[in-house]
Amino acid sequence: MKGKFFIVGLGQIGCSLSLALKRRGIANLVIGKDIKRKSFYKGIIDEYVEELEEGVERADIIILSTPVIQIIRLISKIAPLLRENKILLDTGSTKKEILKEMLKYPDKILIGGHPMAGNVRKGKDAIDENFFEGKPFFLCFPNENSKRGEKIAKDIVRGIGAIPYKVDPETHDLCTSIVSHLPYVLSVALYSIFQDFHRKEMGIENFISTGFISATRLALTELKMAEDIILTNKSNIIEQIEIFIKKLEELKNKIEKDEVSRFLQSVKKDIEKRRKIYENFRF
Amino acid sequence: MKGKFFIVGLGQIGCSLSLALKRRGIANLVIGKDIKRKSFYKGIIDEYVEELEEGVERADIIILSTPVIQIIRLISKIAPLLRENKILLDTGSTKKEILKEMLKYPDKILIGGHPMAGNVRKGKDAIDENFFEGKPFFLCFPNENSKRGEKIAKDIVRGIGAIPYKVDPETHDLCTSIVSHLPYVLSVALYSIFQDFHRKEMGIENFISTGFISATRLALTELKMAEDIILTNKSNIIEQIEIFIKKLEELKNKIEKDEVSRFLQSVKKDIEKRRKIYENFRF
Repeated sequence: MKGKFFIVGLGQIGCSLSLALKRRGIANLVIGKDIKRKSFYKGIIDEYVEELEEGVERADIIILSTPVIQIIRLISKIAPLLRENKILLDTGSTKKEILKEMLKYPDKILIGGHPMAGNVRKGKDAIDENFFEGKPFFLCFPNENSKRGEKIAKDIVRGIGAIPYKVDPETHDLCTSIVSHLPYVLSVALYSIFQDFHRKEMGIENFISTGFISATRLALTELKMAEDIILTNKSNIIEQIEIFIKKLEELKNKIEKDEVSRFLQSVKKDIEKRRKIYENFRF
Repeated sequence: MKGKFFIVGLGQIGCSLSLALKRRGIANLVIGKDIKRKSFYKGIIDEYVEELEEGVERADIIILSTPVIQIIRLISKIAPLLRENKILLDTGSTKKEILKEMLKYPDKILIGGHPMAGNVRKGKDAIDENFFEGKPFFLCFPNENSKRGEKIAKDIVRGIGAIPYKVDPETHDLCTSIVSHLPYVLSVALYSIFQDFHRKEMGIENFISTGFISATRLALTELKMAEDIILTNKSNIIEQIEIFIKKLEELKNKIEKDEVSRFLQSVKKDIEKRRKIYENFRF
């Protein structure tokens, strides 16, 4: 396929997507829009437009890559404008609230998407045409009509090097709360404890090492993105925090009684099976 | 300086240390010993010995790089054998219990050390002559006599590319409980929650992404090393778990009330100052 794309939201995902679509020959045109135009968009997208309507009119496929709450607002603006076979795909981090909005437009082709990719860099440095390579890209179809876009959506996902997985929004938001949103909350909490201690004892600065860096990395997540995730996946996140606290209490009790060995062993045995994923990982 | 070294414990630290000492011209001989001889020691150390006594006899500097409990046992065996200016340095992850043992030999030069370095690899792949480059290397001196070895110890640390920091064992064990041992416990707990969920819903496998990988990386820590850390730094670790649970409860309450923004902002503002450390980090 060769299509015309309109990407709204030119952050790490939107810009990386544009590069991937262009350089891998999936797009013959990428129009873009963000809150305001930045100089580095030149070379990343083909054309910047000020008006949503213009982008929607000229594109075959519209991709929303803003934080979640903004995606919901954009769907309510853009969906009514979609004609015939135009496809709207989002890349938001949570899916239930977005799909709820999509369900209001049963005759349009609206598809929920979520590429599970990320790196610690920001701004122009964070943009990478290989950003999605080998990464999962979840797809949610709100209704039968939206499935008319399934083949094209999968072609796009595979085209940028990602692996498409169809999933329902409830499963998506539950699984991401465990592997992504809870880890974010833990990173923030751990960094905050470090901050509290740092105020009393600055020498702890020298102790920052690889373990701490990897354990707190997610606290660098872009703020608006994180806030929207928490707002739109609140009940799952709260439940996972509660489960985590119980697990920590359990671990603490075992440590107190010098009975933690077996627990550590069972985790170690399992994680060793996945060692290759860890060894091949790059921030 | 050019010295003769005897390294007991030929894991990631011991072997990397041997390579660093040899290739950077600090050692003209490295004798090694472990529980048993492995074929890959050839090329990493100069000579393998079966008897502790022989290694101690022939070396100027003895380095203990086993897990902590074994280091304590080795000190009790080796310290009485040390003559004149021979220096014993350990590389154990906790310092209080090791220093307590060292204090029993006031006329010997015994120095506590801890290089804060680590990677996810294991076996031969984990060994790296640049392992210590730019990393903190803490040094604890149990008594006045041990300070006779201070200059040599610092020369060695700087020689392998690390940065020496003098610290008392209590501060060391408290700071590492925050930046290293608590993160280990959190990694294990998070991985364990993933395991529990995985038993019911294998599809979560597809959701494993960069965030989860970096947040659980420390759960790959070698088991014996982790167990000894927990045993010898138990009270600090338990205290930090309790502080962490309180912090999580606080965060959970804020999330429930949609009042988490300011908290997230303050963490984000602070961690952004350290962004470079994160961007330059390699597993």
